[in-house]
Amino acid sequence: MATHKLLLLPGDGIGVEVMEEVKKIIAWLESKGVASFAIEEDLVGGAAFDDHGESISEGAMKKAHQADAIMFGAVGGPKWDKVPYDKRPEAGLLRLRKDLDLFANLRPALCYPALADSSSLKREIVEGLDILIVRELTGGVYFGEPKIIEELPDGQQRAIDTQVYTTNEIARIARVAFELARLRKNIVHSAEKNNVMKSGVLWKQVVTKVHAEEYSDVGLEHILADNCAMQLVRNPKQFDVLVTDNLFGDILSDAASMLTGSLGMLPSASLGAEKNGKRAAMYEPVHGSAPDIAGKGLANPIAEIASFGMALRYSLGLGDIADAVDRAISRVLDQGLRTRDIAALGEKTIGTSEMGNAVLAAL
Amino acid sequence: MATHKLLLLPGDGIGVEVMEEVKKIIAWLESKGVASFAIEEDLVGGAAFDDHGESISEGAMKKAHQADAIMFGAVGGPKWDKVPYDKRPEAGLLRLRKDLDLFANLRPALCYPALADSSSLKREIVEGLDILIVRELTGGVYFGEPKIIEELPDGQQRAIDTQVYTTNEIARIARVAFELARLRKNIVHSAEKNNVMKSGVLWKQVVTKVHAEEYSDVGLEHILADNCAMQLVRNPKQFDVLVTDNLFGDILSDAASMLTGSLGMLPSASLGAEKNGKRAAMYEPVHGSAPDIAGKGLANPIAEIASFGMALRYSLGLGDIADAVDRAISRVLDQGLRTRDIAALGEKTIGTSEMGNAVLAAL
Ligand SMILES: CC(C)[C@H](C(=O)O)[C@@H](O)C(=O)O
Ligand SMILES: CC(C)[C@H](C(=O)O)[C@@H](O)C(=O)O
Repeated sequence: MATHKLLLLPGDGIGVEVMEEVKKIIAWLESKGVASFAIEEDLVGGAAFDDHGESISEGAMKKAHQADAIMFGAVGGPKWDKVPYDKRPEAGLLRLRKDLDLFANLRPALCYPALADSSSLKREIVEGLDILIVRELTGGVYFGEPKIIEELPDGQQRAIDTQVYTTNEIARIARVAFELARLRKNIVHSAEKNNVMKSGVLWKQVVTKVHAEEYSDVGLEHILADNCAMQLVRNPKQFDVLVTDNLFGDILSDAASMLTGSLGMLPSASLGAEKNGKRAAMYEPVHGSAPDIAGKGLANPIAEIASFGMALRYSLGLGDIADAVDRAISRVLDQGLRTRDIAALGEKTIGTSEMGNAVLAAL
Repeated sequence: MATHKLLLLPGDGIGVEVMEEVKKIIAWLESKGVASFAIEEDLVGGAAFDDHGESISEGAMKKAHQADAIMFGAVGGPKWDKVPYDKRPEAGLLRLRKDLDLFANLRPALCYPALADSSSLKREIVEGLDILIVRELTGGVYFGEPKIIEELPDGQQRAIDTQVYTTNEIARIARVAFELARLRKNIVHSAEKNNVMKSGVLWKQVVTKVHAEEYSDVGLEHILADNCAMQLVRNPKQFDVLVTDNLFGDILSDAASMLTGSLGMLPSASLGAEKNGKRAAMYEPVHGSAPDIAGKGLANPIAEIASFGMALRYSLGLGDIADAVDRAISRVLDQGLRTRDIAALGEKTIGTSEMGNAVLAAL
């Protein structure tokens, strides 16, 4: 039986709590002899800064490069508001993405039927919603240089961020979107602002070219990012696969995930290019560190558990176990078990570890 | 009686149709001797390009500089998809904003009670919603240089857009937001991505400083732009005045306006700095040129009429008439008159000119 190298990076806030529930599942799988894991754990984000003054250590980065898959929790919180910019919690996450070249961020926005009523949108608008947002994760304004604040002669300051995209960066994320679309409803929407941004002009050109040359069997629609935000609110079910850049992806995927009423349920995968049959991969919940409820045992662990399910499927070749995890999640929902985030008004709620135990029991 | 210099720029698509309804109101006000206007009209956007190869002419720009207020319709459409970048319809709009220094874009997202059911959100989430988005309109990635597509030695292309903000640009838009908050619920949310962007770092610093030194009586909350997109979907009524940069403002205001179910109802104002007691100002509907319904007489003219109401109030000193226009709009809604965009399922609908006539009759 192969041993799978997993790196756990729980991070800050509720990241720590939800990771505990994944550990229970890992322990159970090992105890049953179903799979064998070599588990490493390390600090990232504010927790790392508090420990040794950086948002991620060289040692943790080394483990990250060696792992078959990384399970990430969440980073950030008001505690680190005053930390220097390059040492802030988010820097650790961004370094992982960049150094491992995790360019393809897959963010499903899925409305679980049992939860349709906890959405702020009308049931008929979101019931059955199943969008996959494919966000470019290692380019754009997140990493472009110059990224500075400079002093002007007149005493003012001037801040500069730089949005940069090359042909190849756009082409490779477009291919990921088209490949995934073939496994789904065969239609891709590509969102940019080509009416204002040169990166939008190039984005549209390259996506159009990759489509014509390699994926003409897949449907393609171009949409302006502002209109896309509107359409996500108006009629989200018109979308299936939505590909967009790093910054638009950040905002549109957050809006989309909130539509579902299932934010605490949504996993994500950040994938690198395949090299020698291996592909760097990090899995994390779509939700953040939620400082307001951290440490209270209120967080929903399902997004982190479902992220572990994605790791089993896409990085460890354990699709059967992944299926079992997904079924266990459905079962606890059908049993009416709810953490606070997914409860309808008046519904009884349970805490993080109760939810984790319930998923484990359903396994 | 003073004569008010108005420049009408209907533009493309439904911009032309909705402007016709404003003209009816202007003619009626003149015929009643209530106010006196010197009206100029000119081309902008695709219509201007088709006429003389530029998205706005020098002549039109000159009239714009001389006008007391500009009424803008909408620009753009698939017809001009292949037009060179610097001549595309949007370039005319962007030039007006930049050359007239219209840095403050006020975009109300208001849910008319009569229309709450036409929102995709649940009635209780949007009923009574009244947000004012204050978007910076002459800076950021819209105008920063370099803005280019360049050839790389390896045959690839690379696109660059530059997000730039200075202290003064941020401070002046922050002041507009705080001033408006004092007239409303006295709370400002400021949205940026200071965890990723240096412009977000400077934005937060400057807003914090302006607040502490000049507006400490007003509440201030900082929010990350991605979380803001989420919160707008989850619970929009937590917001009152929301100030943000040009690109985030573009996306967040579109999402916010769609929440209301009243997109075809929403006006906006773009204001310059006061100079010698005068302030350049352009008024336009939040909706776009809607190529899909253009020319069919289906567009809702109320956003353009309400924009004219804002012009009467803020640029022409005709607050009484503005009140009357607003009352007339409410009355037609109460009468149950609906264009297609604001009709609930099964409701009977009327066209653009019928709606315009109804507002006029209600006046
Ligand atoms: C934490 C932050 C840097 C990050 C981002 O902006 O990408 C987060 O919002 C996300 O979407 O993963
Ligand atoms: C037409 C376009 C250039 C414009 C923008 O991006 O600002 C529009 O979307 C708007 O919000 O007014």
